[in-house]
Amino acid sequence: MSAPAAKNRYGVSRVRLLKVGRRSDRHEVKDLTVSLTLDGDFGAEVASVDNRHLLAPETLRNTIQALALNTPPEIGEEQIEQFGARLADYLFAGHPALTSVTVEVTEAAWARLNADGKPHPQAFVRGVDEQRTAHVTATRASMHFDVGFDGVFLLKTAPTSFTGYKQDPFTSPSETGDALLAGTLTASWRYNSADIPFAAVWHGTRQALLDAFAAHQSRSPQHLLHALAQAALASYDEIAGIYLALRRRAWPLADLSRFGLDNRNELFLPADAPESVTEVRLIRPTP
Amino acid sequence: MSAPAAKNRYGVSRVRLLKVGRRSDRHEVKDLTVSLTLDGDFGAEVASVDNRHLLAPETLRNTIQALALNTPPEIGEEQIEQFGARLADYLFAGHPALTSVTVEVTEAAWARLNADGKPHPQAFVRGVDEQRTAHVTATRASMHFDVGFDGVFLLKTAPTSFTGYKQDPFTSPSETGDALLAGTLTASWRYNSADIPFAAVWHGTRQALLDAFAAHQSRSPQHLLHALAQAALASYDEIAGIYLALRRRAWPLADLSRFGLDNRNELFLPADAPESVTEVRLIRPTP
Amino acid sequence: MSAPAAKNRYGVSRVRLLKVGRRSDRHEVKDLTVSLTLDGDFGAEVASVDNRHLLAPETLRNTIQALALNTPPEIGEEQIEQFGARLADYLFAGHPALTSVTVEVTEAAWARLNADGKPHPQAFVRGVDEQRTAHVTATRASMHFDVGFDGVFLLKTAPTSFTGYKQDPFTSPSETGDALLAGTLTASWRYNSADIPFAAVWHGTRQALLDAFAAHQSRSPQHLLHALAQAALASYDEIAGIYLALRRRAWPLADLSRFGLDNRNELFLPADAPESVTEVRLIRPTP
Amino acid sequence: MSAPAAKNRYGVSRVRLLKVGRRSDRHEVKDLTVSLTLDGDFGAEVASVDNRHLLAPETLRNTIQALALNTPPEIGEEQIEQFGARLADYLFAGHPALTSVTVEVTEAAWARLNADGKPHPQAFVRGVDEQRTAHVTATRASMHFDVGFDGVFLLKTAPTSFTGYKQDPFTSPSETGDALLAGTLTASWRYNSADIPFAAVWHGTRQALLDAFAAHQSRSPQHLLHALAQAALASYDEIAGIYLALRRRAWPLADLSRFGLDNRNELFLPADAPESVTEVRLIRPTP
Repeated sequence: MSAPAAKNRYGVSRVRLLKVGRRSDRHEVKDLTVSLTLDGDFGAEVASVDNRHLLAPETLRNTIQALALNTPPEIGEEQIEQFGARLADYLFAGHPALTSVTVEVTEAAWARLNADGKPHPQAFVRGVDEQRTAHVTATRASMHFDVGFDGVFLLKTAPTSFTGYKQDPFTSPSETGDALLAGTLTASWRYNSADIPFAAVWHGTRQALLDAFAAHQSRSPQHLLHALAQAALASYDEIAGIYLALRRRAWPLADLSRFGLDNRNELFLPADAPESVTEVRLIRPTP
Repeated sequence: MSAPAAKNRYGVSRVRLLKVGRRSDRHEVKDLTVSLTLDGDFGAEVASVDNRHLLAPETLRNTIQALALNTPPEIGEEQIEQFGARLADYLFAGHPALTSVTVEVTEAAWARLNADGKPHPQAFVRGVDEQRTAHVTATRASMHFDVGFDGVFLLKTAPTSFTGYKQDPFTSPSETGDALLAGTLTASWRYNSADIPFAAVWHGTRQALLDAFAAHQSRSPQHLLHALAQAALASYDEIAGIYLALRRRAWPLADLSRFGLDNRNELFLPADAPESVTEVRLIRPTP
Repeated sequence: MSAPAAKNRYGVSRVRLLKVGRRSDRHEVKDLTVSLTLDGDFGAEVASVDNRHLLAPETLRNTIQALALNTPPEIGEEQIEQFGARLADYLFAGHPALTSVTVEVTEAAWARLNADGKPHPQAFVRGVDEQRTAHVTATRASMHFDVGFDGVFLLKTAPTSFTGYKQDPFTSPSETGDALLAGTLTASWRYNSADIPFAAVWHGTRQALLDAFAAHQSRSPQHLLHALAQAALASYDEIAGIYLALRRRAWPLADLSRFGLDNRNELFLPADAPESVTEVRLIRPTP
Repeated sequence: MSAPAAKNRYGVSRVRLLKVGRRSDRHEVKDLTVSLTLDGDFGAEVASVDNRHLLAPETLRNTIQALALNTPPEIGEEQIEQFGARLADYLFAGHPALTSVTVEVTEAAWARLNADGKPHPQAFVRGVDEQRTAHVTATRASMHFDVGFDGVFLLKTAPTSFTGYKQDPFTSPSETGDALLAGTLTASWRYNSADIPFAAVWHGTRQALLDAFAAHQSRSPQHLLHALAQAALASYDEIAGIYLALRRRAWPLADLSRFGLDNRNELFLPADAPESVTEVRLIRPTP
């Protein structure tokens, strides 16, 4: 038997960083979590029990910290997409055996604390659970960016008309749509270039998705996500494609009719766990 | 041997409710989690295997739902403190064996979604992790309210001077204070009356605590919490006492000096778990 | 107005330790999590912004580590109760202002890995979620121990007869008991002395509780917990009292009758969250 | 511009099931969590706002429950791999537009409770966190099975020699290997056929991996995982390939030398979060 084909990847996960920008009149904070994965031709050294082409996890953690501390002055306020690209470039430059580097950066939101009626220059409160995400996938030939957000928990109290589904022997008899929609939206869209005004496009695309969510009269989760994906593609030509996932939770109406109480779409029983998932991926056709 | 002294409590936990107020021009939402604990003289029936003085958990869940659905119109927009009091009153009225009822209500924040440049009447996004809490403890003779918030994650990027601690054989040699303060604040203050403008006092006390946090030059976590507690007592005479807990996380400076890099209070390594706890309780002297 | 009455407590939480005992033929591991809380007369120094009677969190962490490393040889294999007592004694000896010390120690279970058909001397696999707990509360005059376990998730597939509950307007019409019982049991029993064979009594009491759980034909959660508590008190005279909490989860039968399917107590729909809590506390009468 | 290429997937996640087998002398329990994802040509109906080719989430949940309840008698004790295959077959048969079905089943371990010295026929305690997993990926032409386990938390107290790594400007000066190895192992191996003695091969492969973990003198995580993967491929010809991931946690030695204490590989400071990840994938060459 010939030897099995081997593929190795390794890296560090969840390296946490807080960067404080100390301006004369106020501080700025960036709260990042970084994971880093390296691929390459490491087969030989594994077989020969030779680590000389591998980087130690501690080396990788130090590298992430060192590059986070020393942002080149020409970059200014660095976006997470730029930080990921800079990490990949640094690693390729120093390590010829590397063929692929993946960097995942997530940024948690901190809001300035309002104190005595005005924003405080040095005090902050943790914001919503939403995380801004950038997943940078680099080879020596190309780099692309899958960016977006994770964990935006949305609620719409307008009735949905999720009806007319295919009948099956196990379809429940009474199918009426839901009185509200609750779910967590994850979005990830792709740029095939590093020459993007990252902050502006991220904020604009996020708002286009939320505007579409608020406005859309959806007939199914698929219908809704398709409309959101189209709104994002229509917003910026830089977006080559988008992936959306909606994890809905069942928040049924409380049924108190056996006690003579009439619940007119007022009281719901929230479930803490998602119960269904819908995913849509839209790819812009190449011209 | 005489029989052991027995004490029983029972109840339901984490009953989830979403109440939607359907106004003509917009919807309002309240997202509540309710736990309910009953105490009483249940010793006899336990011994005799007789459940006739116990309420089934399903009965308690139904009761919570039914009272949440049917708010008396004179109450208007009901605060969580009032809902807890109403539940306790209802249970005492129907069940003479009950001696004590405890209701814990927490309210999660939903923010109105901004869409197309304005707040949307029916779309919401989940707010910060902070939970408004009300813990209502009622007997047939009295009722008090411990209210506050849980999980406000605060960050202050000004240096602290937590120094001058007592020396001990295991005190670390270099003691320098921290370059920043990160921690989660929990607060719970007490009213001895139900005749309180609950919403106004809650918002005002919360802001007084955050104002004090932002302004205070603290010399120790004890010093800081003491100042916060005094600010709360000074804000409203209705507050009989306050409990504060600060769960600090160690977010040390990244030390990259061995690589020739100088970290001037810019890059920190956040820990995800709390590492120390400080609690302060202040009781207003009775006049 | 006179000054408010102040009460301060502080400490460190979740200090993690792994102690490896290196015997000639095998290793032994103990995986501990320690929290430590100090009370005392710290009012004056807080007011005067003076930390000289406070111990820094880092000092407390160092102390826990140092005492864990240096177990006196006469103790032999130290139980978590003894470690907590030793920590309290050490702190009282060095710090006269301290009036009360609380130490919480939890021990996670590691099982020896079976490899090539026999237990391996140096390889382990993490055991069940159950945690052995010891909560040592010490003043200068006394010390007591609340010990037990947390998070034992139990399931009994025999039908229960939770019937005959008190009727209320909100009692659900069909009340039938459950086809199974699923819940997490927490137990904590008290010793008023440090002169206890801690390991033997802990294991024996735990087994007495589980034997009683398996054997008991319960008519209500109260009935069940009462029987368990009595079994524990009957097992060891050293136990001065016991607290039990059962967090039940609703695992209803799947109702597929609308599809013509008959579910004869075979298929249940597990809920991941507890839905009701029952607590019992039994105190042995003093002779 | 031509229309974007669309890809839709939908399904239900985390459907929980407990199946109780009621034998004459004892009960058996299976605790399953099922996720189901459907792919197909749903583009048209999404554009036309027509749900008639989509199955409602509730239909999918009912289907999972109904098939779990009604196991064909010829199957006997059904393994999770077989249940996944049966679900996919059922859905393909009824729904011609479906092109691909993915079923993920995880099984949680329950151990029989020892009571009064012997295993109890109807009482169980939740076992270790380890989950047995089966991921069935089916098209109309083929079906493959990726099976294994998740969350086996392993500890080896023998020193490792993770040395000789590639030097980089950010490599830490003192590089010595670790005194122990702690990490969570995930394994997933593939069968390209449904004609496998699923239970026997699963248990045998799991044991081969653990035997190799216990015996191996590793020089790097890559070295270790490579040896484990080879052991699995050597165990059963049915295994077409294997993926392994080791999420290591840094459990450094406590350094108490500044207090004059000598820690001879006895006391470690466990981190609760993984800090590095190593993945290996080995594919058996086709003959």
